[in-house]
Amino acid sequence: MNVEINNKDRQFMMAAIEEAKIAGSLGEVPIGAVIVFQGEIIARAHNLRESTQNAVTHAELLAIQEACKVIGSWRLEETTLYVTLEPCPMCAGAILQSRIPRVVYGARDLKAGCVDSLYQLLNDPRFNHECDVTEGVLAEDCGQLLTDFFRALRGRKKEEKRLRKLLAESEEQ
Amino acid sequence: MNVEINNKDRQFMMAAIEEAKIAGSLGEVPIGAVIVFQGEIIARAHNLRESTQNAVTHAELLAIQEACKVIGSWRLEETTLYVTLEPCPMCAGAILQSRIPRVVYGARDLKAGCVDSLYQLLNDPRFNHECDVTEGVLAEDCGQLLTDFFRALRGRKKEEKRLRKLLAESEEQ
Repeated sequence: MNVEINNKDRQFMMAAIEEAKIAGSLGEVPIGAVIVFQGEIIARAHNLRESTQNAVTHAELLAIQEACKVIGSWRLEETTLYVTLEPCPMCAGAILQSRIPRVVYGARDLKAGCVDSLYQLLNDPRFNHECDVTEGVLAEDCGQLLTDFFRALRGRKKEEKRLRKLLAESEEQ
Repeated sequence: MNVEINNKDRQFMMAAIEEAKIAGSLGEVPIGAVIVFQGEIIARAHNLRESTQNAVTHAELLAIQEACKVIGSWRLEETTLYVTLEPCPMCAGAILQSRIPRVVYGARDLKAGCVDSLYQLLNDPRFNHECDVTEGVLAEDCGQLLTDFFRALRGRKKEEKRLRKLLAESEEQ
């Protein structure tokens, strides 16, 4: 259900990317989300799983909770959620629960995405809600953030392994 | 993946039912959950969607967040989640995210259940986690709570409609 990508979508996805970058600067997997209501961003959030040690603190879930507070209702009607990565089952489910009518995401998550990749949870007529979905907005930028993050992580792990080996060798001598 | 139901399972489901009853007494759809670690309940929660006006405050999600706090980690290894109703997509996703190894539920949710009914999200080898699932523990008690709740709700709505009609008639006179 891909609708036309417009400049507004790019602008709001840029805001989600800024959130993703904040997550990355905290050592979190760089994923960000914003929720827009009547042309204004009413909630911004980024993945905080490691910092909070709370399994459900994904960007989308935090943004949805913030938006519920702002609107004063669990029903987020007339909102659009922008997120840099295709939502996981939990976040796709939270989108259904909060009745968000439109979701725009950047990069696909081939391993766990539940909007297009593994399941199409947002477009199953058996649920009591369905969403309009626009994918691929600034997908390259959104995906590159993740690629760079995981490459740097692997580099740090390799360096750590090398230092551990040197330490073990020096202790043996 | 149904394993043998034992007395412990019944005992912990009773605790989840107590939580569901608290939800019902608050006018919330009566669903409750507890999380058990090393034979002890470490988190108890009930559905609070209406009271909080927060779309994600399902019993399971609240219990998972509480358990993460208690254990001090987003990984809820060696825990069992007991919930009175088959989890929805959001809660099934949160179970995957928190790596809960075993889930025990009471009644099936034929309209939105994502463990057995509509999807089997907890047993999809493409995700990075799978769960042992036991269903049907005190299913009748768990389901009856919901049946009674919705019957009473319909009764109240019918009575409200009757009173509104009487009021309109008296205003016309």
